[in-house]
Amino acid sequence: MAENMTDQELEEMIEDVYEDVYEDMENVEERLDDILETVEELLSRKQYADLRDLLSPLEAPDIGILFGDLNNDQIPLLFRLLPKELAAEVFVELESDQQQMLIQGFSNAELKEVLDELYLDDAVDLVEEMPANVVTRILKHTDPDTRKSINEILKYPEDSAGSIMTTEFVDLKENMTVEDALKRIRRTAPDKETINVCYVIDERRHLIGYLSIRRLLLAEEDDIIGEIMEKSLIAVQTLDDQETTAQALSKYDFLALPVVDTENRLVGIVTVDDAMDVIEEETTEDFEKMAAMLPSDKPYLKTGVFETWKARTPWLLMLMLSATFTGIILTHFESALMSCAILTSFIPMLSGTGGNSGTQASTAVIRALSLDEVRFSDLFHVLWKELRVSLCCGVCLAGANFIKMMLVDRMLLNNPDVTVWVALVVCATLVCTVLCAKLVGCAMPILAEKIGFDPAVMASPFITTIVDALSLLIYFEIASSILGI
Amino acid sequence: MAENMTDQELEEMIEDVYEDVYEDMENVEERLDDILETVEELLSRKQYADLRDLLSPLEAPDIGILFGDLNNDQIPLLFRLLPKELAAEVFVELESDQQQMLIQGFSNAELKEVLDELYLDDAVDLVEEMPANVVTRILKHTDPDTRKSINEILKYPEDSAGSIMTTEFVDLKENMTVEDALKRIRRTAPDKETINVCYVIDERRHLIGYLSIRRLLLAEEDDIIGEIMEKSLIAVQTLDDQETTAQALSKYDFLALPVVDTENRLVGIVTVDDAMDVIEEETTEDFEKMAAMLPSDKPYLKTGVFETWKARTPWLLMLMLSATFTGIILTHFESALMSCAILTSFIPMLSGTGGNSGTQASTAVIRALSLDEVRFSDLFHVLWKELRVSLCCGVCLAGANFIKMMLVDRMLLNNPDVTVWVALVVCATLVCTVLCAKLVGCAMPILAEKIGFDPAVMASPFITTIVDALSLLIYFEIASSILGI
Repeated sequence: MAENMTDQELEEMIEDVYEDVYEDMENVEERLDDILETVEELLSRKQYADLRDLLSPLEAPDIGILFGDLNNDQIPLLFRLLPKELAAEVFVELESDQQQMLIQGFSNAELKEVLDELYLDDAVDLVEEMPANVVTRILKHTDPDTRKSINEILKYPEDSAGSIMTTEFVDLKENMTVEDALKRIRRTAPDKETINVCYVIDERRHLIGYLSIRRLLLAEEDDIIGEIMEKSLIAVQTLDDQETTAQALSKYDFLALPVVDTENRLVGIVTVDDAMDVIEEETTEDFEKMAAMLPSDKPYLKTGVFETWKARTPWLLMLMLSATFTGIILTHFESALMSCAILTSFIPMLSGTGGNSGTQASTAVIRALSLDEVRFSDLFHVLWKELRVSLCCGVCLAGANFIKMMLVDRMLLNNPDVTVWVALVVCATLVCTVLCAKLVGCAMPILAEKIGFDPAVMASPFITTIVDALSLLIYFEIASSILGI
Repeated sequence: MAENMTDQELEEMIEDVYEDVYEDMENVEERLDDILETVEELLSRKQYADLRDLLSPLEAPDIGILFGDLNNDQIPLLFRLLPKELAAEVFVELESDQQQMLIQGFSNAELKEVLDELYLDDAVDLVEEMPANVVTRILKHTDPDTRKSINEILKYPEDSAGSIMTTEFVDLKENMTVEDALKRIRRTAPDKETINVCYVIDERRHLIGYLSIRRLLLAEEDDIIGEIMEKSLIAVQTLDDQETTAQALSKYDFLALPVVDTENRLVGIVTVDDAMDVIEEETTEDFEKMAAMLPSDKPYLKTGVFETWKARTPWLLMLMLSATFTGIILTHFESALMSCAILTSFIPMLSGTGGNSGTQASTAVIRALSLDEVRFSDLFHVLWKELRVSLCCGVCLAGANFIKMMLVDRMLLNNPDVTVWVALVVCATLVCTVLCAKLVGCAMPILAEKIGFDPAVMASPFITTIVDALSLLIYFEIASSILGI
């Protein structure tokens, strides 16, 4: 298509992009394909000035998505067309393989330009993801202060508050006047990640309060910082989990959260945009764990087949092998099944319903745990609630199932084996299975958290296996006592 | 325990709370139980001054959690002990039934005091959740301007950007100087939800740009706003989905996102703290839908048994009834099963593995869809990827299973029915089942989104039912062709 495009058509296309997209920025995402096509056409015609005009009004994250859809050999050229500041912002948005490719193509001067524009926490992310030879080159071209800060932050364990914090925050002294403080902010602001919240420290760098920029602007010039600051000392420690940190930020509706060392000295801050990324990442991990996958930190389409296979097989294998128990139970009751074969046909329904009931309870509890709505001390409260819910659900399902077995299986499908007694066995099993499933499902995540395991890992598939075995045992127990087989 | 506490013990307890909690605010959450006990003891002794001192240093969200654990008749008293501003913040954190109870106990003067301290979007939330008679009383005691704004926002549909926005933002004109702008901000700031980002509008209120407070502070006093503002026009429309809004905020790392009407006039902003709440809420909904529950908007422990039952039974019922198909398939192959009973014992393993494989694929794709990493145009890309992943997984599982059947089932458990041919049937079924499960699992969410359904609803349980039926059909097909039954 690109080859046959006339100049006229290309011009119309560019016009379309300008009219439909840039005058109505909400549509950018839906229209990325159109922009992409125009970019490729302009590239093939070497109309670089037009390209620059086309890309410059876009926000960095959108250009990042565009670059993700382009061939890797087209990216360096486009990247050099971007205005310097935008280029650095786009760089942060790229996948690490694209970043690496760009860095390897950069001249030393170009590399320094990009690195100078990066915020410290983005520089740290970059260093964490690049191979050793690239890291050496990056560190060589950052200024000594930044290099020191990067090395500082790199020392904190992955997923800790220290590893996601930035040290580029505004600190004030308590005896400053508002005028001093505003001067200090004006002087240092260009290098700070945020100035919306400023932190007050004493002479030993202990965190003693904070001040919003709003409060500063509304104060009189000669007010003393120590007198107008907020004294609340909500902070996290460098080694605290990044998820706890993000959730504290969300709970207190802060724009940034101070990070202190073990002696309560302020060493950095975590900003809300990074907290949102952490929450997104941790939520994805929870989804993956609950679906029996090992968590991966790459987007779905960027993960290779081998990596995906590696993340999925271990749990599948374990769950498959653990199904041996259900197999043994079935073999054990083989003669019973032979004497009343109709029982077999309800096994999938029973284990399915058990699995679904258990998953409902475990999902609700896991989510409540991760939102801190439920604690270990609530265990009996939760069990009591699930007991009542499961009785209601079980009775309701059993009723519906009894009617269905009588009307559909017995009358409609004309199966004389489905007697009232068989239906009673199935329905009684249903009630017991739902009860067991919900109690196991709600208790296991809470117990897992108590003994230090990840509740999300204890979720659906694992619980399903346990519930499968339990429901079969219950089924045959009830069948043998009611039907005497 | 509370009855027998001596004054000495109480004093030590209060001291403990001060030392362990207030000097080290990170521990607040873990120590809430201690604070609660102290509060209850102080309440029973009517030591109200001590109570006020104990509660005042806490942040509103923590007091909110404390109040959630107290009896409803203790709350009004405690609430009145709080400093006025803190009281209003705590009010926002309470569950709606506690808010209602408080309002009903308020004098008109008290109600007005609390309402005056609320931000507009919190006032709207309150009005949305209260019964009609309480709403009338609330609106009667808000000032006319606020009342008008509340009514304005209430007109937008639930879950729209308009319903979560606030109209309390800073707007600037493009011909203002920086000095004018700072004056305007100082004058109006106390009523604004945020001043960190200011929006520039033309004389017809069209959004034409924005400015961070940092940029304003760094500019010269006589710079013209129109020249130093950012011209990017990323905005959402009032009727856009709140989830899209929150995700745009997160993607662009903004602190607030402007909301415009159909004619691009600025009507409000959505701030990052509200966006985080929306993301949390929508994620919980996704978890609930993927676990076959109807979404609820209350925390787990606050949802009554009846409500929980209502949210869980419909899907359980539907899935139970849809399992009729697997039952019919089993009945249909009853004679085949009779002639080779050992086949039955592998059914739970096969359907379990199929279900787990399908869930893995569907969860990965649903999450990628909601993070906008995958679009409909990627369907074939996704299918091709899952095809290769499923072949790898399937072959790997089949190999492990063959060894397990030979070593464990045949030799260890000494079951002569488990022949090499039976093992081959089971392993071949495994490969086919995993293949089908992953393809169905990855395609259904994408197709669901294309035709306007919620992909999360198409997840695990629904896919499990389809895969169950498919895997049984494959099993019997392969068994009859290999074993000739």
